[in-house]
Amino acid sequence: MSERPLDALDRAKGKKILIKLKNGEEITGILRALDLHLNLWLDEAEIQKSENKVRLGTVLVRGDTIVYASPVV
Amino acid sequence: MSERPLDALDRAKGKKILIKLKNGEEITGILRALDLHLNLWLDEAEIQKSENKVRLGTVLVRGDTIVYASPVV
Amino acid sequence: MSERPLDALDRAKGKKILIKLKNGEEITGILRALDLHLNLWLDEAEIQKSENKVRLGTVLVRGDTIVYASPVV
Amino acid sequence: MSERPLDALDRAKGKKILIKLKNGEEITGILRALDLHLNLWLDEAEIQKSENKVRLGTVLVRGDTIVYASPVV
Amino acid sequence: MSERPLDALDRAKGKKILIKLKNGEEITGILRALDLHLNLWLDEAEIQKSENKVRLGTVLVRGDTIVYASPVV
Amino acid sequence: MSERPLDALDRAKGKKILIKLKNGEEITGILRALDLHLNLWLDEAEIQKSENKVRLGTVLVRGDTIVYASPVV
Amino acid sequence: MSERPLDALDRAKGKKILIKLKNGEEITGILRALDLHLNLWLDEAEIQKSENKVRLGTVLVRGDTIVYASPVV
Repeated sequence: MSERPLDALDRAKGKKILIKLKNGEEITGILRALDLHLNLWLDEAEIQKSENKVRLGTVLVRGDTIVYASPVV
Repeated sequence: MSERPLDALDRAKGKKILIKLKNGEEITGILRALDLHLNLWLDEAEIQKSENKVRLGTVLVRGDTIVYASPVV
Repeated sequence: MSERPLDALDRAKGKKILIKLKNGEEITGILRALDLHLNLWLDEAEIQKSENKVRLGTVLVRGDTIVYASPVV
Repeated sequence: MSERPLDALDRAKGKKILIKLKNGEEITGILRALDLHLNLWLDEAEIQKSENKVRLGTVLVRGDTIVYASPVV
Repeated sequence: MSERPLDALDRAKGKKILIKLKNGEEITGILRALDLHLNLWLDEAEIQKSENKVRLGTVLVRGDTIVYASPVV
Repeated sequence: MSERPLDALDRAKGKKILIKLKNGEEITGILRALDLHLNLWLDEAEIQKSENKVRLGTVLVRGDTIVYASPVV
Repeated sequence: MSERPLDALDRAKGKKILIKLKNGEEITGILRALDLHLNLWLDEAEIQKSENKVRLGTVLVRGDTIVYASPVV
């Protein structure tokens, strides 16, 4: 069976990913769960707003606010 | 069964969460109910607009206005 | 059966609610009916635009223009 | 059977209504037909753009451009 | 059977209509076909951009870019 | 059977069309395929950005970014 | 069977493509997988922001943020 785009994130479960949001902010965190709408559950999340970094801890990011998501190597 | 992203909020029922809205405002409140559209029912809600904090009490936040939601530890 | 977010408004039928719109305006009125899209029928509605308050009377507010809705105590 | 939000407009058929659009313009006209998407058919419609009033006559207003619609008493 | 909003355009087939787009532009043309998404096929279409009028000839206008459409009497 | 709006493009397959995008850019190219979402496959495509013309070659244009599409005579 | 627009990308699997995003940014990378929503999985991805080029490596680009995608010859 051929691969699906969401597999790129599915295999990053338990690892750190970077999310770019439509409002320009970036969130990093440990990916715990995702669904077909690209809703993401992150643990140990931090959000980068211009100069500041804010700890969010556990966060649910709504899929339709995401531009791209990328595993952090 | 594997976890779903919305479980991150479901387990925060009865507890305080922080919601970031697409218009930039932040709402905090006690999570009472949520659905698959990410519509949220909060009690004892307060909204943070730039400098001001406004008490809303009970509020229904429409899911498609949410960027992310995070349990407040 | 567990509660749903829209119950927060359903129990406010016949009572005054405050609606915050995506365009920044606020509408208050007596909630008469709502549906799953969050379309709302208000009676005795008034809209707050910056300094002015305008009487609308009966109004149908389209659900996808709503940020949040809150019963006024 | 309980009332639905769209009934607020349905009972205004044949009467004058005011529509507020997402682009800030206001249209008035005699409501002739509506559907579940809130698409509206108006006759004798006029559009208010800042200072100017423009006659449109018959017009189909797309539902997803509407903020609210209100019967004019 | 009661009338539907799209009938307002359906009866304008073969006639000239005016379309207002969400980007503020206006297109006129002879309506040839429409569907439930409000996608419109116009012939002899012209687009009005601020001062300029540009001939498009045959054009397919995507329904979700339309604010309103009005038969030109 | 009556004509559908997408037929306006379907008959332009193999010919040059002009696409106006929601971001204001214009793309021209030879139409090779289209679907119901108005996703378009163009060959020999060029994009016009203000003063500049950029060669894209083969391109898939996402339907929901299109304002209108017009066969170039 | 006639071709579909997404075939334009499907045949570019394993090759370099250029993606233009709605926020104006451009991403290049090796296309690994795509789905009907135009969600794309890229490897060796780089993002071009005004003057800067940033390495992303593996990335999932959400389909609804894409304006167009083009195989790089």
